[in-house]
Amino acid sequence: MRVSGTRAETSLLTLDTPCLVLNVDCVDRNIERLQIHLSSLGVALRPHLKTGKCVEVARKAMSSAAGPAAVSTLKEAEQFAEAGVRDIIYAVGIAPGKFDRVFALRATGVDLAVILDSVEQAHLVVAASRDAGEPLPTLIEIDCDGHRSGVAPDDHRLLVGIGRALFDGGAELRGVLTHAGGSYNARGADALTRCAEKERAAVVSAAAALRDAGLPCPVVSVGSTPTAHYARNLAGVTEVRAGVFVFFDLVMAGIGVCGIDDIALSVLTTVIGHRPEKGWILVDAGWMAMSRDRGTAKQAVDQGYGVVCDLHGKPYAELIVADANQEHGVITLRPGSGGTLPELPIGTRLRILPNHACSTGAQHDSYHVVHVDSTEVEAVWPRFGGW
Amino acid sequence: MRVSGTRAETSLLTLDTPCLVLNVDCVDRNIERLQIHLSSLGVALRPHLKTGKCVEVARKAMSSAAGPAAVSTLKEAEQFAEAGVRDIIYAVGIAPGKFDRVFALRATGVDLAVILDSVEQAHLVVAASRDAGEPLPTLIEIDCDGHRSGVAPDDHRLLVGIGRALFDGGAELRGVLTHAGGSYNARGADALTRCAEKERAAVVSAAAALRDAGLPCPVVSVGSTPTAHYARNLAGVTEVRAGVFVFFDLVMAGIGVCGIDDIALSVLTTVIGHRPEKGWILVDAGWMAMSRDRGTAKQAVDQGYGVVCDLHGKPYAELIVADANQEHGVITLRPGSGGTLPELPIGTRLRILPNHACSTGAQHDSYHVVHVDSTEVEAVWPRFGGW
Repeated sequence: MRVSGTRAETSLLTLDTPCLVLNVDCVDRNIERLQIHLSSLGVALRPHLKTGKCVEVARKAMSSAAGPAAVSTLKEAEQFAEAGVRDIIYAVGIAPGKFDRVFALRATGVDLAVILDSVEQAHLVVAASRDAGEPLPTLIEIDCDGHRSGVAPDDHRLLVGIGRALFDGGAELRGVLTHAGGSYNARGADALTRCAEKERAAVVSAAAALRDAGLPCPVVSVGSTPTAHYARNLAGVTEVRAGVFVFFDLVMAGIGVCGIDDIALSVLTTVIGHRPEKGWILVDAGWMAMSRDRGTAKQAVDQGYGVVCDLHGKPYAELIVADANQEHGVITLRPGSGGTLPELPIGTRLRILPNHACSTGAQHDSYHVVHVDSTEVEAVWPRFGGW
Repeated sequence: MRVSGTRAETSLLTLDTPCLVLNVDCVDRNIERLQIHLSSLGVALRPHLKTGKCVEVARKAMSSAAGPAAVSTLKEAEQFAEAGVRDIIYAVGIAPGKFDRVFALRATGVDLAVILDSVEQAHLVVAASRDAGEPLPTLIEIDCDGHRSGVAPDDHRLLVGIGRALFDGGAELRGVLTHAGGSYNARGADALTRCAEKERAAVVSAAAALRDAGLPCPVVSVGSTPTAHYARNLAGVTEVRAGVFVFFDLVMAGIGVCGIDDIALSVLTTVIGHRPEKGWILVDAGWMAMSRDRGTAKQAVDQGYGVVCDLHGKPYAELIVADANQEHGVITLRPGSGGTLPELPIGTRLRILPNHACSTGAQHDSYHVVHVDSTEVEAVWPRFGGW
């Protein structure tokens, strides 16, 4: 099978290191898994495109080339709109200074919606809708687990106050949205299923409160990768957002949402030195290539700056990147491991699985696409950063 | 005074957020401080360009447009060479797969030198020199404090073995180089001066061992920002490398190398929400804009994801970015602080001082250059990433 994109006549044996490697078979399998699960629950998937920031990856994850999709920056909205996506939620609270870009994008035919959690913002959206001469579709963010932003689901006074300010002011009240960020601290299927139910209940009760007040609430949106996979009932929910499920990572494996062999993203690196007296193997993937993300530090198994694999992506059970400088990674045996360091001469190429696909991906400007067990680079897919 | 670079008719009041702001008056003062100090010790400065990754910043830091300079990636070497830099040390251990780019750059007239710490690498350098038909200038890395890579300074057998392999094999043995990375764990002037003396002694004794064996050692290179500022005697040293001194950051302030008001780099951000019941102010600078670097976490004062300043760069003594999601920063009062949260309505613009200028800078593609106390953007300087 050929992968679409720029054809690159190269292999993992010759690429400049460090760089990103993407196992497209894992990507396809991860996407199919969530699609099947959500289909069985009768709910649409609105993939969050912030993890990949890549048109080719987005097209695999979306149900159509036009979306739907969620984004975390207006830059993402603009880039994906240029690639044909037409149904986008900008899922970070709207602020003054951002309306010009929002309406400029809407003027190109993109149905871009924004979110908020205060009457103050609702008044800003109303004023911006009036200035632009069109109602801006707006969702009210609900805080289902005390994790970040959003209206408490039982604060009906605030909820209805925001809804009424939007509706009466001439903006479009499109619905409610929540994100179970707290699910990242849960472990195991039962706990994750409880998080998913809490997420669902919060947003469904908020929707009911709006409707009871005579306000519209067509969209009821939930989403986090752990809860998306462990939801057993999504009655009342219209769509699920998830992002990191496309690539997965060591944090998701630590929570129990995926296995190590489901992780599609790795960093290709070269051995550049040895300190045998310290038990160190030095590689050219430091924190600049891996990011400073240490998301597994608080988990049962701390994976350091990443799990070390051979060139084909097979993990060395006992090796981790224990420490990192800007352009140096320090590979050691896992703490407490009884093994011995393998012979990995200068120039040996390895692949490192990341703590967090969103942050490691962001350190790079392209994906080198391979099939499972292959070292041939099938395509190079660009990714973008910025705001 | 006008700052060179692209003129941008804009101000911090209208820029899209988040983005990088660079106080050029701080940059100039920080550079002058180190230049004066090293001049008084009679030693040349070879600025490490990995922090800024920006031609305009590099030109301020270098003693001439042609260098000398140090870099952490071949991409930096290539970018700065294109801008006219001719004397560069690639200060990360050399590995197979990198020689083609090294010699391609040398063929354009750049005196690019590499470093290594093993006989294995010396043989690779010798073979590459033979293949290229020119001796590759090579420095032997010395480990002055057990921090990372390098030959132990008293391991004269290995040191001379590497030196002889290079020299006898027809490469160019240019000298020795070390980096006192351990100085980042020191605190206060006396401890930093001791680190600097240990760094100096390690590399000077290594140079003596090579010379005693009849080998050349023209360059004796030390470098880290803390030791560069606190060295009192650099006898036997020919040059000092330092990088983060140009911008400084909260980690350097925590070590005692600079004050908070010496930090030239900040991230401009906008208030996007409030959770008064939690004591949170939400801004649009999350870890994507600040990086995941938590370098102050192990210091006496943990600065979270950064210190909060007003639009003119004046710190709020009691505010830090206590937590971060991908595109959300959570501002709170400092733990234990008795103050109250200031009124910062939706849309308020703030500037966040980073833990680590190298990692925060790397999340962005340009600097918005301002003078102290001004909100007018004098120039936009591009920065690059990648390898």
